[in-house]
Amino acid sequence: MNAEIITIGDEILIGQIVDTNAAYIAQKLNTIGIVVSERASVGDDAAQITRSIEQALGRSSVVITTGGLGPTKDDITKTTLTRMFGSRLVNDPKVEEHVRRMMAQRGIEFNDLNRGQAMVPECCTVLFNAHGTAPGMWFERDGKVVISLPGVPFEMRHLMEDEVLPRLKSHFALRAVVHRTMITAGLAESMLAARIANWEEALPPYLKLAYLPSPNIVRLRLSAYEVEGETVAREIDRQFQKLHDIIPEYIVGYENDSVQHNLHEMLRENGLTIAVAESCTGGNIAAKFTAMAGASAYFLCGVTAYANSAKMDILGVKASTLEKYGAVSEETAREMAEGVRRISGADLAVATTGIAGPTGGTAEKPVGTVWFAVADATGTTAMMRNSGTDRGQIIDRATAYAIEMLSKRAAALAAAKEHTETNK
Amino acid sequence: MNAEIITIGDEILIGQIVDTNAAYIAQKLNTIGIVVSERASVGDDAAQITRSIEQALGRSSVVITTGGLGPTKDDITKTTLTRMFGSRLVNDPKVEEHVRRMMAQRGIEFNDLNRGQAMVPECCTVLFNAHGTAPGMWFERDGKVVISLPGVPFEMRHLMEDEVLPRLKSHFALRAVVHRTMITAGLAESMLAARIANWEEALPPYLKLAYLPSPNIVRLRLSAYEVEGETVAREIDRQFQKLHDIIPEYIVGYENDSVQHNLHEMLRENGLTIAVAESCTGGNIAAKFTAMAGASAYFLCGVTAYANSAKMDILGVKASTLEKYGAVSEETAREMAEGVRRISGADLAVATTGIAGPTGGTAEKPVGTVWFAVADATGTTAMMRNSGTDRGQIIDRATAYAIEMLSKRAAALAAAKEHTETNK
Repeated sequence: MNAEIITIGDEILIGQIVDTNAAYIAQKLNTIGIVVSERASVGDDAAQITRSIEQALGRSSVVITTGGLGPTKDDITKTTLTRMFGSRLVNDPKVEEHVRRMMAQRGIEFNDLNRGQAMVPECCTVLFNAHGTAPGMWFERDGKVVISLPGVPFEMRHLMEDEVLPRLKSHFALRAVVHRTMITAGLAESMLAARIANWEEALPPYLKLAYLPSPNIVRLRLSAYEVEGETVAREIDRQFQKLHDIIPEYIVGYENDSVQHNLHEMLRENGLTIAVAESCTGGNIAAKFTAMAGASAYFLCGVTAYANSAKMDILGVKASTLEKYGAVSEETAREMAEGVRRISGADLAVATTGIAGPTGGTAEKPVGTVWFAVADATGTTAMMRNSGTDRGQIIDRATAYAIEMLSKRAAALAAAKEHTETNK
Repeated sequence: MNAEIITIGDEILIGQIVDTNAAYIAQKLNTIGIVVSERASVGDDAAQITRSIEQALGRSSVVITTGGLGPTKDDITKTTLTRMFGSRLVNDPKVEEHVRRMMAQRGIEFNDLNRGQAMVPECCTVLFNAHGTAPGMWFERDGKVVISLPGVPFEMRHLMEDEVLPRLKSHFALRAVVHRTMITAGLAESMLAARIANWEEALPPYLKLAYLPSPNIVRLRLSAYEVEGETVAREIDRQFQKLHDIIPEYIVGYENDSVQHNLHEMLRENGLTIAVAESCTGGNIAAKFTAMAGASAYFLCGVTAYANSAKMDILGVKASTLEKYGAVSEETAREMAEGVRRISGADLAVATTGIAGPTGGTAEKPVGTVWFAVADATGTTAMMRNSGTDRGQIIDRATAYAIEMLSKRAAALAAAKEHTETNK
């Protein structure tokens, strides 16, 4: 069964906000077996709202809109839907009581605008919004459903979970939508595709393959729509098992267990600690780790040594190294990694130094040149990667390379540790 | 003049990614006076892509698509457009040379899939993609334009800046789109609307007012489409000045003069340098600065001192301070700021230490408690802010508070410097 999502608001059309609601709603609909066939965003304009909902209803069984339900004049979704369904606005005592209570709790006077929020189209089923003052609405016509939700993300999310999904499940007979994503690292998209061409060719027709490239990573997603869920999930497992035989060394995990998340778990499980010395990645590697709850168990410190003086004074990089080889060099990367490991006492340390651009490149060391080093008690290794041409891209890719390099060394260290402990 | 944006890819429809491209494109089109009247997202499906582009062309003069230009089988935008425009794919020697060079740089073999990327529809103008292997394409029909861009955000952004915007400006006679947003704090949306009702009523008809509520904040946006830009910008200034007389105590600023960008410019102009000592913000402040080209002129170093040992050994925080007041305290924040300033030799330093959660909170210091300190040659000041309940939110808010605090001190320092120099 198909659904369409229409997000309403001038702020979306002018790019003042990024529309995150549509992605959330799509994910949730997929979990109950509803396929999202199209999404649209329109302005706070009655003719446009009506036209886009009518067009979507012509193609799909469910239309979910968000936005345009606030108390002020620029919000017109409710009156537009009321007209579209040939209804009229009536007071809903339960909603009014709820709005009054919310206003009182916040010490705000209940005024005419709030009174307007308690008015709902007579023909709809009200979806009670426990977290806000704008109620959701459920309309039906010719067996099809139009659902209007507020645009405030957390209010919308609660209404989806508490009201919309349960009602859709009981209203329609739904099949399943299945997605699984495998993460590969180290093979460019075109090389990966060439390597797995025969496997791709032999996929059952109901499985749709997608390549999702990002810095140093290509995710492979298999999707099936409106199928018998468990059977298809098992088939996808079988297909991914076949891929394991073809490209074992490039598979680093499955959706949502990213390289970094795996490393996070590995470090915690093995009681290993890390430190980071960054130049061109500028604090980005540290920020990636510290964004994860529990990082304080293993992340001791990061030093963003942008200035040469900081590389020398804090990390102990030798002046002669900087002079002889330059800040962007294997030797500097090595001394940075060893330096941050020494001052932090971490088991493992990684360092980056490169040219993020847009200026600073030379013929010998163009923008995008990045040196990496990883140090532990057994020694230090270094590598160079050309990480792109755009400042943001270079920082992101270099961050991904550094985390992958750290991850491999952490795995080796964890294995060695286990070996030692087993042999004790 | 109107444009529509169509983002293409199953990953958008299933909610696997949040579509940030559409917001970026909309913003950029607005800057050159093009109004985005509608946005849509469709799957990697030829019939759907063709239908949605044809519908958009029926309503608007420009259609911009992103996505579906990769080398693998799931990407079909290029072949679909070729058929739609009744053209055929031909080799573009310049694109082929570029793709070969990019592959060689990354040490990747040039294969049939890459060869396919160098094939372009004969009827289009190729938009050279210096940062990726998929070229952009510009099609014309009956005076209308269809532009196809890659979905990789940074490639799309460079193509918009370097190719699309200049060509659109020379191709169409464009008027202006003007948006200005005032930020208010402390008045609920319904109360604010009641307070400024007379002002709203008296707005000139070509100015459209929008209310954008978020926790504790309501942003008021005035927009005008296809107008004479400078005249309208002056009129908006006049209208906002009137609001200043009505609700002076609730106006906290304007959007898009980002505090951080202003600080970046101010530091460069005044030759001031900074350093950062982070605990709970975990490298995020450093990453914000180093993301901006030219930050190396003033950003000397950042230390993410997560472990107490790092606070002591690198930043010189006293063990007795940590013991007596704890890591999350005014005293620790002060010593961190002073420490990083001392070891870096920066003019200004900022420090953060707090509880990002989800664990680690106490009754006295709940999750979200963050201490900030700023140090310069004249001394050190500190403040505490409760920065939210969610780890990501706490990190983001604390980063914003720290940058704001740094910014105020930098402004004072720059003013003092100017005063001194003037009196020399």
